Amino acid sequence: MKERYLITGFSGFVAKHFIDYLEKLKLKVEVYGIDLQRPSFDLLKFKHVTCFFEQVNLIERDQLKSVIERIRPNYLLHLASFSSVAYSWREPSESFRNNTNIFLNILEIINELEVNCRILSVGSSEEYGNIAEEDLPIKESHKLVPTSPYAVARVAQEMLSRVYVDGYGLDIVMTRSFNHMGPGQNQQFVISGFINKILEARKLNQNAIKVGDISIVRDFVDVRDVVRAYYLLFKNGKCGEVYNVCSGRSVMLSEVISIISEIMEVKINPQVDEALIRPIDNRVIKGSYQKLKDATDWSPQIPLTQTLKDMIISLGQK
Amino acid sequence: MKERYLITGFSGFVAKHFIDYLEKLKLKVEVYGIDLQRPSFDLLKFKHVTCFFEQVNLIERDQLKSVIERIRPNYLLHLASFSSVAYSWREPSESFRNNTNIFLNILEIINELEVNCRILSVGSSEEYGNIAEEDLPIKESHKLVPTSPYAVARVAQEMLSRVYVDGYGLDIVMTRSFNHMGPGQNQQFVISGFINKILEARKLNQNAIKVGDISIVRDFVDVRDVVRAYYLLFKNGKCGEVYNVCSGRSVMLSEVISIISEIMEVKINPQVDEALIRPIDNRVIKGSYQKLKDATDWSPQIPLTQTLKDMIISLGQK
Repeated sequence: MKERYLITGFSGFVAKHFIDYLEKLKLKVEVYGIDLQRPSFDLLKFKHVTCFFEQVNLIERDQLKSVIERIRPNYLLHLASFSSVAYSWREPSESFRNNTNIFLNILEIINELEVNCRILSVGSSEEYGNIAEEDLPIKESHKLVPTSPYAVARVAQEMLSRVYVDGYGLDIVMTRSFNHMGPGQNQQFVISGFINKILEARKLNQNAIKVGDISIVRDFVDVRDVVRAYYLLFKNGKCGEVYNVCSGRSVMLSEVISIISEIMEVKINPQVDEALIRPIDNRVIKGSYQKLKDATDWSPQIPLTQTLKDMIISLGQK
Repeated sequence: MKERYLITGFSGFVAKHFIDYLEKLKLKVEVYGIDLQRPSFDLLKFKHVTCFFEQVNLIERDQLKSVIERIRPNYLLHLASFSSVAYSWREPSESFRNNTNIFLNILEIINELEVNCRILSVGSSEEYGNIAEEDLPIKESHKLVPTSPYAVARVAQEMLSRVYVDGYGLDIVMTRSFNHMGPGQNQQFVISGFINKILEARKLNQNAIKVGDISIVRDFVDVRDVVRAYYLLFKNGKCGEVYNVCSGRSVMLSEVISIISEIMEVKINPQVDEALIRPIDNRVIKGSYQKLKDATDWSPQIPLTQTLKDMIISLGQK
């Protein structure tokens, strides 16, 4: 019988890259995707992986239960989330409730049906909250001081995971994933947004683009490195443990713009728009991936310039 | 206009002692109690404090909203919780959901109605989880590793409090309250349980009582010291900060039994019943109340022997 993967949040860009990775490994596995929205990619384009999709609302417990009962996955990649921090500020309790409720639904159902399944609970570097520069690169042992409702929900998800591991014997591995970037990412995210603005500017023969605070420093990790980490954590992660998934490399947003300009051979003049500046908690974020490396031998492989090139190509084709 | 206190979980023993304390201070204040169960004490017995009670289900948002809208309290003491750790293991997600949902209901309503109100969010020493002996007495800066669904909900409550303070300007002070004891406490709790068993044994002229693991060491704080701390935190606690409420004194359960025996002038022979032994995470718990003391000048005033005497009298009268 083929190995079965169940992926929540299937229509997002991370799921797509995860399947690409399984396909690259030539794995004869079945992938069942569930999401509220239909995916935008072709399910039949894979040669090795067999893909299925079902429209499911994870908040509807009975609906979710019947799906899990039918599939009885070996691996469950929980990517679904109401992930916008902005939304979580607009609708704090709604955001918190939805995020924790969908996760609790999954845990309860897996527990109830006694599905022999490894769950990857994807968390966020947002869980750390404010980080002092002397604590960089940040390790998993650092304390969590979440500063948004979204981040509190992610912390609760992680803590509940641990309780279900210790108390009910579920097999859960947790991540704290840092800023993703890569081809296919929505333009609402900062790097895709930059590239898009620069592409637009070039079209109009302009060189000014509006930006927020580009002096902040972030740890951006290529989504293709991320999904490889997720796969390796399914295989070699330790149950009940949490792992940073990050590049271990910090880069200033202004530097990212310079590299994009260089690749595209345009001169760009970023102009700070006060309206785009958000109250910023962290000036500098950088993670340590030592724990992930020790467990799985993972390290990031894709250089920043390569990621940006691929993103430019992908966005330029639209 | 008189100051108005709103107390959730009004029919529990902490609320009763809180009103006793306001009465002792001869405060001409109004106290509005809400709970699912009716209180067992007489609302009319107070000379200074005016008491009201309303049966309210905190999970019913509209019901709660109409109450808060009417009262517009100056102080909100949130004592209500599905506080049994055992229940939280039986119904983990239910317990987690209920505890966080009633708290989120309160925050949302106070925020929506723009009630100018200080909230005391009562948490638990359970939030710390396993504590190494070298970290005792435990301080608020220690990291939180909750080990039950109940404890995760308490951590989430505290983290959400901080988010609502920073993000929405609510006025919330948080506690991590350690084991309570005192007159009126339910016999399900360990010390009341001991006293009750010893009273029973004495009646039957026996000296054996069945106990669990009495070699564990806990920080028990008298409920009358606890409510005084809560009152002082309403007046002098710092918004957005969390305070241990503890005795700073650790005592072994076997020692508690010895003191009770001495006070009652009986010889007691505790016999360990394996069925009463729970998987124990912490052998020794002791808190530091330095932060609370610095903020409010609070320190515990009631010696252990006094508490036990009062509890024996109270339980003996039943």
